[in-house]
Amino acid sequence: MDIKEKIGKHLKNLRTDKGLTQEKLSYESDVDKTYISEVENGKRNISVINLEKLIVTLGSSVKDFFNHKDFE
Amino acid sequence: MDIKEKIGKHLKNLRTDKGLTQEKLSYESDVDKTYISEVENGKRNISVINLEKLIVTLGSSVKDFFNHKDFE
Repeated sequence: MDIKEKIGKHLKNLRTDKGLTQEKLSYESDVDKTYISEVENGKRNISVINLEKLIVTLGSSVKDFFNHKDFE
Repeated sequence: MDIKEKIGKHLKNLRTDKGLTQEKLSYESDVDKTYISEVENGKRNISVINLEKLIVTLGSSVKDFFNHKDFE
């Protein structure tokens, strides 16, 4: 997995753990739903501002988000 | 500090700890020197692929890079 795919997988896990749909996450984060879908599918080279927006909307922090062996 | 500024600060610290100039980091990572300078100054909304390139070139990991209270 490349970094885009790892981030997509972890974002999707975090979102589903919180019980949010992509639509709801899009609405709450003000990030486009199609963009979120592409990020989750590992297709998008997301920027740090959008990544932080999504992570914070999902109730986590950038530190906690990357605290996983996938990012070693 | 916003996320761009935090990342810039930590990248610069990591680079100088390794004793690398921006020129050398640019050469080794294949990321443009002007871009690196702007990232370090907190002006650039860096994408995850370029961020990972710089971090790995500097001998660290994305996990370790974000493991700091600034990113909580």
